[in-house]
Amino acid sequence: MKKNDVSIIGAGLIGSLLGIYLQKRGLDVSIYEKRPDLRDKKYAPAGRSINMALSDRGWKALDKIGLREMVAPYVIPMYGRRVHDEHGETSFLPYGKENQAIYSISRGKFNHMLVDEAERYGAKMNFNHSCEEISIADTAIKVVLPDGTQEYRETDVIIGADGAYSSLRDAMQRQTRLNYKQEYISHGYKELTIPPTAEGEFAMDPNALHIWPRGQFMLIALPNPDKSFTCTLFLPFEGGKVCFDKINDEEDLESVFKTYFADAFALMPDLNKEYFGNPTSSLINVECFPWLANKSMLIGDACHAMVPFFGQGMNCGFEDCFILDGLIEKYGTTSWELVFEKFQKVRKPDTDAISEMARNNFTEMRDSVANPRFLVRKKIEAKLHELYPTEWIPLYTMVTFSDMKYADAYAQGKLQDEVMDKVMEDPMIMQNWQQVDYGAIISQIETARMV
Amino acid sequence: MKKNDVSIIGAGLIGSLLGIYLQKRGLDVSIYEKRPDLRDKKYAPAGRSINMALSDRGWKALDKIGLREMVAPYVIPMYGRRVHDEHGETSFLPYGKENQAIYSISRGKFNHMLVDEAERYGAKMNFNHSCEEISIADTAIKVVLPDGTQEYRETDVIIGADGAYSSLRDAMQRQTRLNYKQEYISHGYKELTIPPTAEGEFAMDPNALHIWPRGQFMLIALPNPDKSFTCTLFLPFEGGKVCFDKINDEEDLESVFKTYFADAFALMPDLNKEYFGNPTSSLINVECFPWLANKSMLIGDACHAMVPFFGQGMNCGFEDCFILDGLIEKYGTTSWELVFEKFQKVRKPDTDAISEMARNNFTEMRDSVANPRFLVRKKIEAKLHELYPTEWIPLYTMVTFSDMKYADAYAQGKLQDEVMDKVMEDPMIMQNWQQVDYGAIISQIETARMV
Repeated sequence: MKKNDVSIIGAGLIGSLLGIYLQKRGLDVSIYEKRPDLRDKKYAPAGRSINMALSDRGWKALDKIGLREMVAPYVIPMYGRRVHDEHGETSFLPYGKENQAIYSISRGKFNHMLVDEAERYGAKMNFNHSCEEISIADTAIKVVLPDGTQEYRETDVIIGADGAYSSLRDAMQRQTRLNYKQEYISHGYKELTIPPTAEGEFAMDPNALHIWPRGQFMLIALPNPDKSFTCTLFLPFEGGKVCFDKINDEEDLESVFKTYFADAFALMPDLNKEYFGNPTSSLINVECFPWLANKSMLIGDACHAMVPFFGQGMNCGFEDCFILDGLIEKYGTTSWELVFEKFQKVRKPDTDAISEMARNNFTEMRDSVANPRFLVRKKIEAKLHELYPTEWIPLYTMVTFSDMKYADAYAQGKLQDEVMDKVMEDPMIMQNWQQVDYGAIISQIETARMV
Repeated sequence: MKKNDVSIIGAGLIGSLLGIYLQKRGLDVSIYEKRPDLRDKKYAPAGRSINMALSDRGWKALDKIGLREMVAPYVIPMYGRRVHDEHGETSFLPYGKENQAIYSISRGKFNHMLVDEAERYGAKMNFNHSCEEISIADTAIKVVLPDGTQEYRETDVIIGADGAYSSLRDAMQRQTRLNYKQEYISHGYKELTIPPTAEGEFAMDPNALHIWPRGQFMLIALPNPDKSFTCTLFLPFEGGKVCFDKINDEEDLESVFKTYFADAFALMPDLNKEYFGNPTSSLINVECFPWLANKSMLIGDACHAMVPFFGQGMNCGFEDCFILDGLIEKYGTTSWELVFEKFQKVRKPDTDAISEMARNNFTEMRDSVANPRFLVRKKIEAKLHELYPTEWIPLYTMVTFSDMKYADAYAQGKLQDEVMDKVMEDPMIMQNWQQVDYGAIISQIETARMV
C-alpha cells in the first residue's frame, strides 16, 4: 500500500500552517514553493503586503496546534482605528471592548516561524521548486527542480495553498469544469514607511491602526516591532482627482501628501524614493467552484482571494486549515474525496460572505469613518452590545472577535443594519443619540430575526 | 517606419474571416494556428460541433466582402423547428415568415473555404504554430514552430480569435488587470449521426432543425449536404433520471433512446459505436473585460464564448468582424487603441445580451417547445408581427433575421414578454387565442416602451 502522502503547493502562511496540521495527523507532507527559501536573508518579498492583522480566528487556529506562545512575542495589539483628518486631528474608534484587539505581525517573520515549525514536524520543504504542470487525473506534479531539470512526482493528494494566482487552480481550470471568476477593483496600493523618530521611538500611537480616510482614497499605517509603521496608500489607478496615474513626479506626490496627508507626510522622510521605487500592486477578488477535482483541492486565497479591507484574508485561510483538520479528525485520512466534499460544502458560503464583507468594508474605511453620523451609529451599536451582549453583536465583532460562521455574521449584520438605518432616520439623532430607547431596538432586531 | 502588420491567433471561422477583412484593408496579416491545416484530410476536428447555423448577421458579414456566392452552394435552409414527441409525432414551428430560414453548414467545409480565401487575399497562414507566450507590453509572440524550435516575433497588433480557451486571454489574465468569468452549465453534449436511407435520401425532412424536447434534456438534428443529419444529444452530466453518468453500456443507452427518442433511434444504426466512441463535451460561458490591453485585443469566443442554444455564436463572431472593420474604415489603421476602445465599448453590451439570451433559450428548446401554451403564445406573436410588422417583432426574429443590436433586441423582447405574460393569463386563452384583440396588445407594448 502507498503511503498517505500529501503535496502542498505554496509555502506561504496557509501552506506552512497546513503542513504543520497535516504532519501532526501523521501524514507525510511535501511542500513545493517556487520562490527561494524566505529564511535566506537575500530574499525580500516584492509587492506583497508586509503586515498582517491577526485576529481571533487566526489565534484559534494557532492554539489548536499550540503555537500561540511562539507567535505572541512578535505581535503588536491594535485596539482600534485612529482616524486622522485633513488638519492632523485624530480620533480613536475602538474595535470592540476594552481588551479586544487585532494584532499587527510581519508577514515575513510569521512565515519564517511557520516554515521552521513545519520543518520541525517533518514536512519536506522544497523551495525553488515550481510546478510546471499538474495532472488532476493522476494526482501528479511535474516539478522543475532548482537546477532546471524536471521530475514527475505522483502523490496521494494535492492541496493548492498557492494564493490568488494559484497554479493548481490553473490546472483545474484547464482540465475540469471549473467555474471561475476574477475581478480587480479600481484601486491599487503602494507600501510606504514611517520610520522611528530620531529618539528611536514610534512616531505615532503604536496600539492602533491609523487611517487617513479621504472619501475615494485612503492611507493606513500598521505598527512594526522595530518601531516603524508600514503604510499602505490605496488610490484609484486612474480617474478622479487623486490617482496613481496622475502622480508622475516628486511635485505631484508632495502636492497630494501635503494636501491630504500633511501629518503623515511630516513623518515620511523617504516618501519620494519609496513611492517611485515600490511597485503599485493591484487588488483582486477570486471566486471559484468546485474547490476540488479528483484528489486535488484548493485552500485559502487560491479559492477565495479577497480584498484586504476586513483584515480577514489570512485569518480566513487559517480557519480553513482548522476546519479541514476537524474534518480529517472526523473522517480519517483515507477518505479524501469525502473530506474535500464536506470542506467545500461547509466553507464556500462563509468565504463568499467574508469576500463580500471585505469589499463593502472598503467604503467604510476610506469614507464612512470620517463621517460624524457613522461614529454616532457605531457608538449606539457599542452601547447596545454592552447592554445586550448576546442580543446585539456589532458586525465587526462577529467577524473579528468570534468564530461564528462568516455567513451567519453577514446575515445578522444585514438585519442589524436595517434596524440601525431606521434608528438613524430620526432627524434629531445626532443630538439625542444618548437617549435612544435601547430596549426598543432590541425588540426590533428580535422581531426581524423571527421573520 | 514599421509595416502595419497584424497577428491573428486562431485560424477558425472568426480568425480566417477577420484575416480576409484585414487583408482587404491593406494590412499585413499573419494567422497562427496551433492545430494542423484543416485542409489536410488527415485532420478531423475532435469534440467541436460539426454543424453551424448561419443566419442574417453571418450573411451580412459575408456579403460585405463578397463571399455569399461562394458559401451559398454549401448550405441547407431550415425554415423552422420540427418538434418530435415521445410517440414519434412531429409538428412544425416556423422560425419566421415563409421565406425566412437559418442555414445549416458544415464547420469543416466552411472553415476550409475561409482559410482558402484568407490565403488568396495574402494572409500568411501558420498552421502547427502554437503561441507559447505572448507579451502584452511588447506586442510580441513566442511561437513554437512545427519543428519544435521557438521564435520570438514582434508585431504591431495581436488579435485573439482563439476561442473559449484563448491563449491571448490567458496572457492578458496574467499580465493585466483582466476581469474574467467562466461558467460551465450542468449539461454536456455528444454528437451522433442519422445516416442517409438505403436509397441515399434524407431520413427526415431536411429543411428543418429537428428537436426532441424532453424537459431536462433534448436531442437535436441538423441536415448535411451528404443527406445525413448530425445529431447532438444534450444531457446533464450527472443527476436526474437521464444523464451521461448513468449511461454506462449499450443496455442503458438503448433504454434511454427507446424510451425518449424511439423514432430517432430507429434511424441510428451506429448509435452504440458513436455514443461510446465520441467524446462528451462541456458547455462554457465566458465573459471578460476589458477586451483590449495595449495593442492586443480579443474577438469572438475568446471574449464572449456562449452556449449554443440561440445558434448565434458564429454569427455574433462574424458580426464582431463586420463592426471592427467598420471602425477601421472610420478611424484608419494607425489608431489601434482607439479602434479597440470603440469596439469593446459598442460591442460588450450586445455580446452580454446574446450570451444571456442563449442561456435562456436552452429552457425554451428542451422544454417549452413541447408545451401547447407556448405554441399558442408563439402563434399570437407571429400574428402580431404579421399585422404590425414594425410594432411587434418576435425576439427570435430580431436576433436571427435582423441586425438590430442584440442588447436592444433583448430589451424589446423583455417588454414583449411582459405583455404576453398578461395576455396568457386569460384562463380561456387556449380556446380563444384566435379572437385576441391584437390592437389592444400593440397599445400595451407601445405604452410599455414609453415608460
